[in-house]
Amino acid sequence: MLTELRKKVLDANLELVRQGLVIYTWGNVSGIDREKGWVVIKPSGVEYGEMTADDLVIVDLDGKVVEGTLRPSSDTPTHLELYKAFPAIGGVVHTHSTYAVAWAQAGRDIPSLGTTHADYFHGPVPCTGDLSAEQVAGAYEAETGRLIAETFRGLNAVETPGVLVRNHGPFTWGKDPAEAVYHARVLEEVARMAKLTLELNPAAAIPKILEDKHFLRKHGPGAYYGQTKK
Amino acid sequence: MLTELRKKVLDANLELVRQGLVIYTWGNVSGIDREKGWVVIKPSGVEYGEMTADDLVIVDLDGKVVEGTLRPSSDTPTHLELYKAFPAIGGVVHTHSTYAVAWAQAGRDIPSLGTTHADYFHGPVPCTGDLSAEQVAGAYEAETGRLIAETFRGLNAVETPGVLVRNHGPFTWGKDPAEAVYHARVLEEVARMAKLTLELNPAAAIPKILEDKHFLRKHGPGAYYGQTKK
Amino acid sequence: MLTELRKKVLDANLELVRQGLVIYTWGNVSGIDREKGWVVIKPSGVEYGEMTADDLVIVDLDGKVVEGTLRPSSDTPTHLELYKAFPAIGGVVHTHSTYAVAWAQAGRDIPSLGTTHADYFHGPVPCTGDLSAEQVAGAYEAETGRLIAETFRGLNAVETPGVLVRNHGPFTWGKDPAEAVYHARVLEEVARMAKLTLELNPAAAIPKILEDKHFLRKHGPGAYYGQTKK
Amino acid sequence: MLTELRKKVLDANLELVRQGLVIYTWGNVSGIDREKGWVVIKPSGVEYGEMTADDLVIVDLDGKVVEGTLRPSSDTPTHLELYKAFPAIGGVVHTHSTYAVAWAQAGRDIPSLGTTHADYFHGPVPCTGDLSAEQVAGAYEAETGRLIAETFRGLNAVETPGVLVRNHGPFTWGKDPAEAVYHARVLEEVARMAKLTLELNPAAAIPKILEDKHFLRKHGPGAYYGQTKK
Repeated sequence: MLTELRKKVLDANLELVRQGLVIYTWGNVSGIDREKGWVVIKPSGVEYGEMTADDLVIVDLDGKVVEGTLRPSSDTPTHLELYKAFPAIGGVVHTHSTYAVAWAQAGRDIPSLGTTHADYFHGPVPCTGDLSAEQVAGAYEAETGRLIAETFRGLNAVETPGVLVRNHGPFTWGKDPAEAVYHARVLEEVARMAKLTLELNPAAAIPKILEDKHFLRKHGPGAYYGQTKK
Repeated sequence: MLTELRKKVLDANLELVRQGLVIYTWGNVSGIDREKGWVVIKPSGVEYGEMTADDLVIVDLDGKVVEGTLRPSSDTPTHLELYKAFPAIGGVVHTHSTYAVAWAQAGRDIPSLGTTHADYFHGPVPCTGDLSAEQVAGAYEAETGRLIAETFRGLNAVETPGVLVRNHGPFTWGKDPAEAVYHARVLEEVARMAKLTLELNPAAAIPKILEDKHFLRKHGPGAYYGQTKK
Repeated sequence: MLTELRKKVLDANLELVRQGLVIYTWGNVSGIDREKGWVVIKPSGVEYGEMTADDLVIVDLDGKVVEGTLRPSSDTPTHLELYKAFPAIGGVVHTHSTYAVAWAQAGRDIPSLGTTHADYFHGPVPCTGDLSAEQVAGAYEAETGRLIAETFRGLNAVETPGVLVRNHGPFTWGKDPAEAVYHARVLEEVARMAKLTLELNPAAAIPKILEDKHFLRKHGPGAYYGQTKK
Repeated sequence: MLTELRKKVLDANLELVRQGLVIYTWGNVSGIDREKGWVVIKPSGVEYGEMTADDLVIVDLDGKVVEGTLRPSSDTPTHLELYKAFPAIGGVVHTHSTYAVAWAQAGRDIPSLGTTHADYFHGPVPCTGDLSAEQVAGAYEAETGRLIAETFRGLNAVETPGVLVRNHGPFTWGKDPAEAVYHARVLEEVARMAKLTLELNPAAAIPKILEDKHFLRKHGPGAYYGQTKK
């Protein structure tokens, strides 16, 4: 079932490796079929090099396995909460990419310091607070998803397609699995650039007008970047 | 039209990828035919891997498309202003290479701290000031080019073949598209070296006589580096 | 003799190169046959590219060569002490990987700052103290192993499968040579992440409950990560 | 002439590229035939990818071209001074490798902070002082070589096979061109490790007894590392 989506999710998982965002089995990508309410996700602890489209697992939004013989990623409940909280998204990615993890471990939002960031993220990439002891001891992975959703109260998840989970690492999303990976790659690069920038100038900041200009040059009704938009 | 130049501009764009200076569609290279006053430039938002010489767009110095079915790079007006301001240059490059962006986001000139820098850039690589709100809201990309030209008032653009646009990133240039890419690569390396150096010694500086010696060893009538120069 | 183990130890040594953990002849992997009490180890100063399974040396736990024409790694006595001190382990790795060495040279434990670390190391990765002048002048490599064993008094070597030897570099171990290399790769990554994190926030720390949660999610009777456990 | 040495020098130059120590035409390797007093060296400004053994230039110790149609490296006089000052060496390398340049631009010796350094360099890698204005304006490249020789007064060039030329970059040497490249690669790695270490602990240092132990484990009459020595 969902042959096309399986293929897209497999490709997106392998793209994580090609982009240098994961080692070993770290990280996972999922994609959703919104009509059916089914999510295709990487199996837990399987090496990217040996994974086939058939190894992917289909679960419904309650986490029940619809198809698949392997156990789905242990982060599946986090993905599901994101699909429930952000109805416009079609793919979710989790990685342990180095610089994004460093900001997450530091418990800091990644500030928007230039046009590279502003082209993709409209404002800082937020870092969540801590889960409570009860949340960690309870439905930990689902609570992680709900914490992200709560962090985005008042934010537009489409305009800020990523988050840092404190002491853990980044989740990103997009209209499909490929775009979610794209945002994971961009997030890692802007995380690195932001750290280097603040080391050169702790007071660095982007003027608000320039930040808006770049985001809106690529997104929304006035966009004029690329070939297909507008 | 301009078959030779198209080929050079395509090669130079692909060299950006090989040199690790760009990911995805970030960055663009153009080249000019000074006789005709026409500029060949990368189309907007097209992946390097799929680009052909035919996809490149020819525009005149007013930005009017002379040949091409795709939309030219959104940064085209910046390139055109540079060709108008610096009559000696034949190629222009824009990237978001990591360390050059970090200095641009920090709003700092890259100081000349050693012979690696002095071999190519005669003095600091300047960082522009901010565009005004009106400039950002207006003809943003052309204003960016004019801001660079203004930053070079009193400087020799051939002896300092690159600039950092504040909160944005580097532009470099050269006698042709290949040399512009070469300068983009060198700029990224000296940007990295300069940051590392200042972390080891915040007071680091190059003696003026050594800086001049190295630049003039490779450039101008007294040059004695390489095989073909004087 | 020990054809299977020879093959595993050779593969693990070559994996060090593929993972970017060693250059030239730096680093070495061994594996033990617990029944026979024999250890298969890399020969000293031989390039990875030219090494064959036959070049590996078999020694007993006293360091006597059982089979092999080449001299065993000069670090062999350190490996042997670790096998004696930690009966549960089946493979040992030594590298000079960059970030782990930096922490070792700094004489600092690597603190657990996030789930990437906590997934593999239950608590900080400890750094040993100095060897005494007598220990350095004496059976230096064996003393190094004994110093590691002493550093682990009160610690569980299976739950913390690695150490930094002060002013030297990391040793890691695992149930077999492959897992020991796996831990060497993870150690290098968490060493890098920890340094970047503390630069962003010198007070960074992981809540104890989250640290335990992640370690126990992957290890022990309650583990639910991956396909084969539980 | 010197067919064997030409081949070794060509290989060593190409190894600079494979080891990631140079980009473009940066860097150069030479080798000496001590009996004839002739030096084989890279031509100036020629790309590594296109270089053949025939392109190499043979000069005598006065810098007179013995064989070759191309102009020798502009750094040739520096190499010649090193061969004259250090009679035991057979190969010389110059690069602009990133971390070694950073220390050179900072004007700082690279301290010995661990066994990785001590295995190859017996004590700090020294950084020269400045050349005088007269020396820069005069026989600049020969003066650079003489400045290095002067910096080594009281040091053993075989036990410390490398130097940083202030505001410029590293020179290394060895018994032949291959070993000189080997030392260039090690120097870059210990330069990087030393910077990272001091960032983690500004007071880091290696005990003298450990430093001597590691150097003498690999060098001199008591060496017991590798297969061929003692």
